[in-house]
Amino acid sequence: MTEIVTAFAPASIGNLGVGFDMLGLALDGIGDRVSACRTDDAGVTIVEVRDLDGKLHLNLATDPEHNTASIAAQALWNDYGDDGGVELGVYKGVPLESGMGSSAASAVAAVVAVNELLGTPVSIERLLSYALVGERYASGGMHADNVAPCLLGGMIFCPRVLLPDTVRLPAPDGVSLVLMHPELKVDTAQARRKLAQSYSMEQWLSQQGYLGGFIAACAQNDIALIGKTLRDVIIEPQRIAVVPCFKAVKEAAEKSGALGVSLAGSGPSIFALCEDSVASDLAAAMEQACRGFDIECQSWVSSLHAPGAYVES
Amino acid sequence: MTEIVTAFAPASIGNLGVGFDMLGLALDGIGDRVSACRTDDAGVTIVEVRDLDGKLHLNLATDPEHNTASIAAQALWNDYGDDGGVELGVYKGVPLESGMGSSAASAVAAVVAVNELLGTPVSIERLLSYALVGERYASGGMHADNVAPCLLGGMIFCPRVLLPDTVRLPAPDGVSLVLMHPELKVDTAQARRKLAQSYSMEQWLSQQGYLGGFIAACAQNDIALIGKTLRDVIIEPQRIAVVPCFKAVKEAAEKSGALGVSLAGSGPSIFALCEDSVASDLAAAMEQACRGFDIECQSWVSSLHAPGAYVES
Repeated sequence: MTEIVTAFAPASIGNLGVGFDMLGLALDGIGDRVSACRTDDAGVTIVEVRDLDGKLHLNLATDPEHNTASIAAQALWNDYGDDGGVELGVYKGVPLESGMGSSAASAVAAVVAVNELLGTPVSIERLLSYALVGERYASGGMHADNVAPCLLGGMIFCPRVLLPDTVRLPAPDGVSLVLMHPELKVDTAQARRKLAQSYSMEQWLSQQGYLGGFIAACAQNDIALIGKTLRDVIIEPQRIAVVPCFKAVKEAAEKSGALGVSLAGSGPSIFALCEDSVASDLAAAMEQACRGFDIECQSWVSSLHAPGAYVES
Repeated sequence: MTEIVTAFAPASIGNLGVGFDMLGLALDGIGDRVSACRTDDAGVTIVEVRDLDGKLHLNLATDPEHNTASIAAQALWNDYGDDGGVELGVYKGVPLESGMGSSAASAVAAVVAVNELLGTPVSIERLLSYALVGERYASGGMHADNVAPCLLGGMIFCPRVLLPDTVRLPAPDGVSLVLMHPELKVDTAQARRKLAQSYSMEQWLSQQGYLGGFIAACAQNDIALIGKTLRDVIIEPQRIAVVPCFKAVKEAAEKSGALGVSLAGSGPSIFALCEDSVASDLAAAMEQACRGFDIECQSWVSSLHAPGAYVES
């Protein structure tokens, strides 16, 4: 009997507004699945890419050199595989180019599945480096802010200067995440290339001040301080032009009690943190503001303690 | 009988290496005293500036418009004083232009003394804004990284974007500060003007990553992470040319087990954090390295829980 291993990896929010390239959060209940089974042919191949409902996915390559799942799995296979190979099935729950860590979810699910198939030669923390190989292909940058929370769950601080080490941040009690995905697409790699390369001292000190305050706020469970520090004064202003509903959605979320609102990754999805009690009203307000621009959308409410990737079977 | 109030305010380390303009630490056992008593003449004047041993201080102005103590006290007096005035005596324990927060200590001691003389109309936290008026005169910048720990004690995170709010960081257990003051002088305002005004994305993301990691490390009492994050890759390289012994002192401290070493403020003083058990050896090694350059020096070992300013009598 051929062994098939399936792993699930959640969607995630990179940057989390305040921590460009170094802070990310896993989402509850939405993610990708990757199945892996051994073959005699050498190396990693992809047999199919489907949506979770079984529909063939036409926008993603099954060419193993152009899919983050196979690229990440191949890196792991190079170090721990044998003369044979592995066939992957990729089942997408995370929308593409949504700012919800779609490429990271596939890469992470793939390395978790293949690692299990190989008898778990690598610890979950050390799988990060392999998943990052896939993420680098997708986004053009060596940042772990989707891959790390996707793999480990919860809220992870993962600046490049500390990689492969990462730091789990305690999630404040009583705070929820609302994520709203407008039916638009943003190419992450292209969005990165458009960012300014030079910043004034005032700019980076402001952003660094907000990030430091946010990390302290999480550690001290200080919700008021989260409300004062969940800000992106550097990257967000450079990116919102491609999301026409952003300003209206942000205002609607703030009016409904959001502690902070920003783009998820490079967008178009928009997230807010808020106290648990207002989360569902806030999601409704964000959707309504988005539909005011004739843009279809979908939203999720998530805990800040979402589990990371795991083997399902 | 004329009431005289005397307040003490400690020396402090601005920047603390990793948090330029937004992180500072109070020192134990070294500081300035300011005495205040009422006069019939309007406004704030300075009657004398002396060293703590009573010697007249020749390098500091008694002209109230050019001394941080009187400038800060005058700002408080403008809001809460009466038609009369106050005479200050300033007694310096903190060496001038040492990177040890000399101007902040005088400004803080002055506002604490005058506030007491007025019957404490202002809470200690709100005194920060008045002390900052003096600091701005001295350094040319509106940063609180000396004034805030000097006023409040311990380790304070105080980015400009959050002022007048500040955040107390928990000091990790078992960690000491070593401060070594070489007999050199650095003009803080001049040092600021020399800093580059533009920084690459890679530079600020690196420094932001270290600062975020350091704050998380303090919150989680993770001494190994302090050792990985107590770094200044942006400001320190621009400033060490004026402190010829810096590199040798830093190397000596690192060899003796320092978790991290950098300039105190704009220097010339050099600080290290280290585990308690190695602090005195580390201080000796830093002094020895400094004297190797024929530069006289003095060092202090301090807890990270030093008290802030207080009224002595």
